[in-house]
Amino acid sequence: MNVSELPTPTLLLDRRRLVANIARMQASADRLGVALRPHLKTLKSAAAAEALITAGARGITVSTLKEAAYFLDHGITDITYAVGMVPAKLPAAAELIARGADLKIMTDSVAVAQAVAAEAERSNTRFKLLLEIDCGDHRGGLLPQNEEILVIAGLIAESVAHFEGVLTHAGHSYGVNEPAAVERIAAEERDAVVSAALRLRAAGHSVDTVSVGSTPTALFATDLAGVTELRAGVYTVFDMDQQSRGVCETGEIALSVLASVIGHNRAAGKILLDAGGLALSKDRSADHFRPEVGYGQVCDAEGNLIPDLYVTSVSQEHGHVAVRDDGDFERFAIGCQLRILPVHACMTAAAYDYFNVIEGTEVGERWDRVNGW
Amino acid sequence: MNVSELPTPTLLLDRRRLVANIARMQASADRLGVALRPHLKTLKSAAAAEALITAGARGITVSTLKEAAYFLDHGITDITYAVGMVPAKLPAAAELIARGADLKIMTDSVAVAQAVAAEAERSNTRFKLLLEIDCGDHRGGLLPQNEEILVIAGLIAESVAHFEGVLTHAGHSYGVNEPAAVERIAAEERDAVVSAALRLRAAGHSVDTVSVGSTPTALFATDLAGVTELRAGVYTVFDMDQQSRGVCETGEIALSVLASVIGHNRAAGKILLDAGGLALSKDRSADHFRPEVGYGQVCDAEGNLIPDLYVTSVSQEHGHVAVRDDGDFERFAIGCQLRILPVHACMTAAAYDYFNVIEGTEVGERWDRVNGW
Repeated sequence: MNVSELPTPTLLLDRRRLVANIARMQASADRLGVALRPHLKTLKSAAAAEALITAGARGITVSTLKEAAYFLDHGITDITYAVGMVPAKLPAAAELIARGADLKIMTDSVAVAQAVAAEAERSNTRFKLLLEIDCGDHRGGLLPQNEEILVIAGLIAESVAHFEGVLTHAGHSYGVNEPAAVERIAAEERDAVVSAALRLRAAGHSVDTVSVGSTPTALFATDLAGVTELRAGVYTVFDMDQQSRGVCETGEIALSVLASVIGHNRAAGKILLDAGGLALSKDRSADHFRPEVGYGQVCDAEGNLIPDLYVTSVSQEHGHVAVRDDGDFERFAIGCQLRILPVHACMTAAAYDYFNVIEGTEVGERWDRVNGW
Repeated sequence: MNVSELPTPTLLLDRRRLVANIARMQASADRLGVALRPHLKTLKSAAAAEALITAGARGITVSTLKEAAYFLDHGITDITYAVGMVPAKLPAAAELIARGADLKIMTDSVAVAQAVAAEAERSNTRFKLLLEIDCGDHRGGLLPQNEEILVIAGLIAESVAHFEGVLTHAGHSYGVNEPAAVERIAAEERDAVVSAALRLRAAGHSVDTVSVGSTPTALFATDLAGVTELRAGVYTVFDMDQQSRGVCETGEIALSVLASVIGHNRAAGKILLDAGGLALSKDRSADHFRPEVGYGQVCDAEGNLIPDLYVTSVSQEHGHVAVRDDGDFERFAIGCQLRILPVHACMTAAAYDYFNVIEGTEVGERWDRVNGW
């Protein structure tokens, strides 16, 4: 089937670009001498996970326990759940482990570590616990010098659970767009977990996992000595947010929303699409460096970028594209299809239950996704 | 089951508030002497549609053909699809009509009207066509004085299809927050469609439907002479966007996201929730009048509003709540549940397949939703 036969709006995944992106990051991890544990929060798809593992990934990262259960159902056992654990979710995590998952959970809280130790004892579950380190992002995590690092490791070491290691995420790498600045943050990210690991080892703890990752730092890091693994997710498809930060080119963006022109408002100088806030998401992450991108970059139905044409505003089911000149009304007739490169792939993809996997303009497989919680 | 037993994040729908909101809008429509055709784009739920119809609604409005098919499967036939039609979607619309839907479709385009006439002939389908009028919102629609109004009505009148009437949406009512200003826009909205209907009737066309609607104008309109029906959707549950515009009180907001505290970052002065950009949406509609609201108003697990506590930023699975003082870390321990009143109900609800319908803190039925396209 040709892309032009698909009802709109719908989600396209360009297989060639996906494969190239996967290879690029795997090569980066290989060069740095660390394992790659891709984050499936972006693709949430078993077929995508299979492609990643075939290319060399060792284990996966997930953002929800629902993802963990889905991937386990598809035969993937080595899973890190990289969102802070809460006591109420421990029974569900224990069930996944009982079903065969080699699940790593994460916290930065003494209280949660106590709950993990208690639930490990109660249900005889060998939870593997990762300690979250703050490397400068200031979302979650303990600073490497925080004394509670040793308290948590000690609590777990004395329990039925297992102290697995340390993990950090340089989310602040999204605040810069100079390669040198990203490289510097990658070094800070490494130093934070490696120094925490050294302190833990000096206190007698084994630290099997020293985990870093964000797409920008993973691609710009030059030296990850002391790190064991790299996590990143959005690199698989990239998006305009990454492009705005100099992390990728538009020609590497593998995800797009196929939309139809549903109206012309000549008085207001805009074309209306059937892809609005729900189909594209209301994410405006590209604003920092490229505010003109708005809610997405417009391409033609074959995927060729149309310069200076963006989704400038959205309502629930309408995308508004400010035309460049009146000729755009002739070029883009009502009913004509366009592709939108999304601002933030993880947010856009979440509105869809599946990907239409394409090669050029040919639609191939349909890959399912696991959304929700 | 008590709300506290639900896994988080999850979506709560307060039945008492929903019923009160439905009654309030129905009373408004009754007082104005017009039919109420609620927009199901917010709730996307058959159980909710049933509650609306029981309370007096006549027909429903939908934003996707998938919604139309879902509601038809649930026995609702009188459906207006209030997003611009494109030729490629006409066969799907014809199929719904063949299956028994009394479906109204919409356009503002001569080219689409020609396609409707052709497809009506080809498939012998009596499409009912509404003409979209621009009342000042400048999204879609023809201005009432535009000559193409008569062209489109003429094209349809001469075809197998049926010219049904005119429809407008005062989306620009969201740009103001003074009751007098909303009332003025409601009058403009009325005048735009009523004047278009008069022109069409003067040209010999029957105009059965003269349709207006947006939640603010529907609630603030004082005189809808000449209008036959009112469409509105978000009033069923309201949200912080509506509250910021003075359209509702927080105590009327029937939708919330139940979340858990998953982290404390004392150094950064914030609490982390397991409801982030996916669970809440990245909509920032309340920014215009209440930027402090961020991504949502925080309430306790029983639904009591916590003054000055908001979701100040989000990443994919994390909501960040800036604490008011260090006491908040004691008040909101890790694992504790909170409810978030969403900024934009339509966007937030779309991340979930169902509502947990609650009365107080008791969880009752689960109402399904139809998402996607």
